[in-house]
Amino acid sequence: MILVVTLNPALDVTHEVDQVNWAGVNRPHRVHVRPGGKGVNVARTLRALGAEVTLAGLVGGGVGRELVTGLDGSGISTALTWVCGETRRTFAVVDTGRGDTAVFNEPGPPVSVGEYREFFVTYEKALASCAAVVLSGSLPPGVPADAYADLIAAAAQASVPAILDASGAALAHGVAAGPALVKPNLAELGEVSDQSMERAGQPDADAVVTAAGRLLAAGARAAVVSLGWHGLLAITPDGNWRASQAGPVAGNPTGAGDAVVAALAHGLVRRQDWPERLRHAAALGAATVAASAAGEFGAEDYRRQLAEVQVTGLPGPDVWREDG
Amino acid sequence: MILVVTLNPALDVTHEVDQVNWAGVNRPHRVHVRPGGKGVNVARTLRALGAEVTLAGLVGGGVGRELVTGLDGSGISTALTWVCGETRRTFAVVDTGRGDTAVFNEPGPPVSVGEYREFFVTYEKALASCAAVVLSGSLPPGVPADAYADLIAAAAQASVPAILDASGAALAHGVAAGPALVKPNLAELGEVSDQSMERAGQPDADAVVTAAGRLLAAGARAAVVSLGWHGLLAITPDGNWRASQAGPVAGNPTGAGDAVVAALAHGLVRRQDWPERLRHAAALGAATVAASAAGEFGAEDYRRQLAEVQVTGLPGPDVWREDG
Repeated sequence: MILVVTLNPALDVTHEVDQVNWAGVNRPHRVHVRPGGKGVNVARTLRALGAEVTLAGLVGGGVGRELVTGLDGSGISTALTWVCGETRRTFAVVDTGRGDTAVFNEPGPPVSVGEYREFFVTYEKALASCAAVVLSGSLPPGVPADAYADLIAAAAQASVPAILDASGAALAHGVAAGPALVKPNLAELGEVSDQSMERAGQPDADAVVTAAGRLLAAGARAAVVSLGWHGLLAITPDGNWRASQAGPVAGNPTGAGDAVVAALAHGLVRRQDWPERLRHAAALGAATVAASAAGEFGAEDYRRQLAEVQVTGLPGPDVWREDG
Repeated sequence: MILVVTLNPALDVTHEVDQVNWAGVNRPHRVHVRPGGKGVNVARTLRALGAEVTLAGLVGGGVGRELVTGLDGSGISTALTWVCGETRRTFAVVDTGRGDTAVFNEPGPPVSVGEYREFFVTYEKALASCAAVVLSGSLPPGVPADAYADLIAAAAQASVPAILDASGAALAHGVAAGPALVKPNLAELGEVSDQSMERAGQPDADAVVTAAGRLLAAGARAAVVSLGWHGLLAITPDGNWRASQAGPVAGNPTGAGDAVVAALAHGLVRRQDWPERLRHAAALGAATVAASAAGEFGAEDYRRQLAEVQVTGLPGPDVWREDG
């Protein structure tokens, strides 16, 4: 079983409107509502890959109830902790005429020390029966910035490898606790290393390798950086690789990074070697872009991408070893 | 007790954002969530006026539960009928930098014949103990366009005066059933009479009187037309009046029409004469514009407006009688 932690999940509400009137009344022609947030997307993708998944985290209020109802029938087991505050919504307005999408992210609910402690007890219990844990997304108000460090330390105690997908202070603190893997995107890596990761509008591979190397020096055992349609760049003690897809994929990039995280966790528990794991992750990320909703992908898209992804070694340790 | 019918209530979610990025990610600095829809606003205003109020209508799903929870502590009694579909949301984005507001109204839930019938039974029961009924707002899918006509006929059977605030086909059908009062605004009156109610950007009083007179000829016993900050125009068998406020009020006009309806219902059950009733309604509408949320008003604003509103007779029957 893979444990996925979502401390700040969301109910994602999407309105599709043709030619939005930004100063007037609109009647969306389609409304989608589904559980969201990075952890939920990861759990959904893992489930689609056939993995057993348990979702732990914090939910509250009527929106939390809607979120939990929305997970019914997903095959995702839940070990959620209820809080007094209200789970946040995200609103996306898709202007189908102009092709723009505006997203409005509500702040998460305030979480008390006691509520976080109750979650922690549930989390430690769930660790006992899992092969890996994924820690994904932002922290709601009241949860300390170093919470991921505590959760990674508890996982280490239980000999469970932890995969961290976070940003800013949560990422910086988490790295120091020695996760098996961190998965920043270019913007997150740029923010945490305080320098640009792009040159002339393209990912700057040298800067990425250097900044990711610093995450390893700070404690992470490996780092996989997602480069949008430019693929993935992995810095590991076993070597460095780049996984490249054939080219840009038309679609919705929301959740593609979460699909990459899910595939990396899936590859880890299946003991795939790094090149195989990266091929799997890059293909799943690209297939998720092609699908309309985060956490979904078409099996045919995935198979085609899998055949097209190129994984090449980068300068660094030249021995390709099985990763345990 | 005043019975308020809301067949298509909504959960109103408002995000305040400074300088919205309509093609990117926004973090609202304030989020408000509250029960809404015209009937709910009317009920809230009536409650604020000290009236006993029962809210009847259709709610469903997690959003319906949130709406009902949001009414806790409001003092509004509920006799709601649960449906399988999900109560709609409205989503408003207030750009506090630019001063624009975009509103996104979800469609209402589909309502089955059996669900509507169940509501009707509840409605008939509630009629037995009420002094007036207010029928407000749009009809959800599945509810027949002439539903308000049936509800007005049932009210007449129970000798309960009905006040109708609807638009389009629902208004046209409802008028034929002989409500005690209809309260269209300029746009609604223009739509139902198929001609413009404005001339040179101002309400065209002659056109309004003629069109409102047609509503009386079609069955309504009286019509009060809301003219925005230009006040109210009343066409009744007892005479015609115009209530004028001192001038425009800065604020949020959402819900001002609902406040007018509430005041007219309140004046009706208190047997105020028409001029007094109209003064009350115009003042409450203006005070509601000055308040930040629909269905709220400041007591001081209301008192000031009440002193400022001018009610003048218009050509027509010149006898001012008490209205029974």
